[in-house]
Amino acid sequence: MALIVCKFGGTSVASPERIQKVARRLIERKQAGNDVVAVVSAMGKTTDELVGLANAINADPPAREMDRLLSTGEQVSMALLAMAIEARGYNSMSFTGRQAGIETDATHAKAKIVKVHNDRIKKALEAGVIPVIAGFQGIDARGDMTTLGRGGSDTTAVAVAWGIGADVCEIYSDVDGVYTADPRICPHARKLDEISYDDMLEMSGAGSGVLQMRAVEFAKKYHVVIHSRSAFTDTEGTYVKEATDMMEEAVITGIAHDTSEVKVTIRGVPDNTGVAAKLFSALAGNMVNTDMIIQNVSEDGVTDISFTCPGADLARARETLDRIVPEIRAREVSVDEDIAKVSLVGTGMKSSPGVAAKAFSVLGEAHINILAISTSPIRLSMVIDAGQVASAVQLLHTAFGLDSDSVFEETQLSAEEIAAKMNKGR
Amino acid sequence: MALIVCKFGGTSVASPERIQKVARRLIERKQAGNDVVAVVSAMGKTTDELVGLANAINADPPAREMDRLLSTGEQVSMALLAMAIEARGYNSMSFTGRQAGIETDATHAKAKIVKVHNDRIKKALEAGVIPVIAGFQGIDARGDMTTLGRGGSDTTAVAVAWGIGADVCEIYSDVDGVYTADPRICPHARKLDEISYDDMLEMSGAGSGVLQMRAVEFAKKYHVVIHSRSAFTDTEGTYVKEATDMMEEAVITGIAHDTSEVKVTIRGVPDNTGVAAKLFSALAGNMVNTDMIIQNVSEDGVTDISFTCPGADLARARETLDRIVPEIRAREVSVDEDIAKVSLVGTGMKSSPGVAAKAFSVLGEAHINILAISTSPIRLSMVIDAGQVASAVQLLHTAFGLDSDSVFEETQLSAEEIAAKMNKGR
Repeated sequence: MALIVCKFGGTSVASPERIQKVARRLIERKQAGNDVVAVVSAMGKTTDELVGLANAINADPPAREMDRLLSTGEQVSMALLAMAIEARGYNSMSFTGRQAGIETDATHAKAKIVKVHNDRIKKALEAGVIPVIAGFQGIDARGDMTTLGRGGSDTTAVAVAWGIGADVCEIYSDVDGVYTADPRICPHARKLDEISYDDMLEMSGAGSGVLQMRAVEFAKKYHVVIHSRSAFTDTEGTYVKEATDMMEEAVITGIAHDTSEVKVTIRGVPDNTGVAAKLFSALAGNMVNTDMIIQNVSEDGVTDISFTCPGADLARARETLDRIVPEIRAREVSVDEDIAKVSLVGTGMKSSPGVAAKAFSVLGEAHINILAISTSPIRLSMVIDAGQVASAVQLLHTAFGLDSDSVFEETQLSAEEIAAKMNKGR
Repeated sequence: MALIVCKFGGTSVASPERIQKVARRLIERKQAGNDVVAVVSAMGKTTDELVGLANAINADPPAREMDRLLSTGEQVSMALLAMAIEARGYNSMSFTGRQAGIETDATHAKAKIVKVHNDRIKKALEAGVIPVIAGFQGIDARGDMTTLGRGGSDTTAVAVAWGIGADVCEIYSDVDGVYTADPRICPHARKLDEISYDDMLEMSGAGSGVLQMRAVEFAKKYHVVIHSRSAFTDTEGTYVKEATDMMEEAVITGIAHDTSEVKVTIRGVPDNTGVAAKLFSALAGNMVNTDMIIQNVSEDGVTDISFTCPGADLARARETLDRIVPEIRAREVSVDEDIAKVSLVGTGMKSSPGVAAKAFSVLGEAHINILAISTSPIRLSMVIDAGQVASAVQLLHTAFGLDSDSVFEETQLSAEEIAAKMNKGR
């Protein structure tokens, strides 16, 4: 007997049939003696379609109107899910962000939750009702609808779980948990039973798409346990929670990769004070999120500066550089879109020196060139050629003892031996 | 310089292109020095599609959830229209029924407006904004969304016009006003410049689909002038307002027809006290809206009873009769779906005897059989064969002096002469 928040994404509610399945699952949880609250995203591609309509009408639609437009998607799926639950003889009631008491700041399109007024949801639960809450939306202090930005439904679910004091926030998706690496490119990847908030944050930030970073941040701040699990099977997924002693045994928790970034190089930059500052403040001013920055050793008073940024920011980066490069008298700009970032994540790294050295050596032996490096106390990220990302992840996964057949011991194989082993396997 | 409410139906906002057109029209009205408030329906067939989704999930969806589902349609069109206005450099803001202060009773799916709190709309107008209000929706006293039923957006527009004290409520549609008869079957039909509330109510009730009866009732009660006009042209339409001396000159204002009703006959009904009461209370109990009732002269202690009702109620009527006919020991039931109701409407009928006699004679001479008759002080309705509806409307239109070439005089032609004239024209 527990109090559970269950969040279902767009894929899980994409059709009347799937909505029926979600209803069945919620009722099973209820029948097992739990109190259940559902949080839903918009059906399938609804949000994209609404964005398309808006752009056909106004190239730069006012944020307030965009929020009211987009918030309708979740209102459709919440009402349909409540109907599906009622069709099976259970009481249900849907709640908009407003009615569920999700109070946000007034930053339209990426509002932050500031408060959860949980009276109506608690009352519904007391009356034996299964409440269904529209994800992704709230209201600001003036009573205007806001939306939380992409993936905001995860955040809604965590916020509601916190607001009503739920035992767990179950986030259902088309993957069945958090893996040590992406199973699509790393066949030996292993599902984690649990992961700490910090490791999960670094994994999300480094490209693992299982959970939204903001939702994990919120969960960490308010101590909400997340259970990331499959919408299609009944098997347990991964619990995201406070770090435990158990978790800290492994040096590396998982390996994330990200192929959505690009590398931009500015050549022949005069090596004067303030040039880099000028360059990067111009980029920041144009909303280019620079990730890693690499500056070569200066030669004859000029140097090359490279940085990585999300592919989605590339157009704005080019725009900025077209303006700033002549101004700082640099020579030329080149862009490499075929890069990948591979990140080792693990709270255990803090107390284990030598992770970086080992990672470099594993990749070096396999002739995988490292183009850039960045680190945090619990993460090591390396930029490599996109074509080599699968090999790199597989090699590191094996080298750091993450393979499913060697869960509790770090393998003692050298990088060369691993490479040989892997080639044999092909 | 006036304060105008402009209501646009689903056809007028069915695509981004049409929404742009509506925006242009609103801005023209604004540029002409008026204060303008828009009320919109859902885009095109949105409401029907949402109903389809709901029915795929729950054959008898809870009314509360149905309302929240359906109210999303207008929220999409209101946001898109506000964006379209902003794209043209004018300030706009959309308002849900809640935000526009449309307070209703708690009767989901056909709520009645009880109050309009107009502060936010008035403030927006004072700030030079063009407010766009979602039609068809409101909130009840508990804060739950309600919908006003089919055609509810007309009622929203009239209620808002009343609430803010607008000079006129313009209702835009794909017809350019109220005609003396349906121009599709009566080529001589003439657009009315104005019509009284009472005549408009009878026209709407008798099948003229231009304006929703509830909206006209609301307008009459609160003295709101409606201007029914075309969404596609700039020509003036028809003003619906208090009766004036001018209007009352004509005996007949217009002719409405309705082919959506059916006639049900129960034969061999024992002519005992209470049988008819039993029959019609059973029908009423099963939500069959009986319109006209005809009872034949009794012969040998049995009689035939006929009634008309909307075709949409036929299944429920059959259901009721299958149960009640054996009980009252009647012989058999037959249904005629090929009937039409033709109605003469005019406040002037009150002071002009002989309208019925003339109408019967006109139809009689043309061998059009009258199956049933019903009257109100300002309406005469006759049920005839559906195949003869066009001829009947045309003949009556000419006989009562409504033809466009004889606007101000009643023709003195006999029914025979008119029939001859019409035949010649074929």
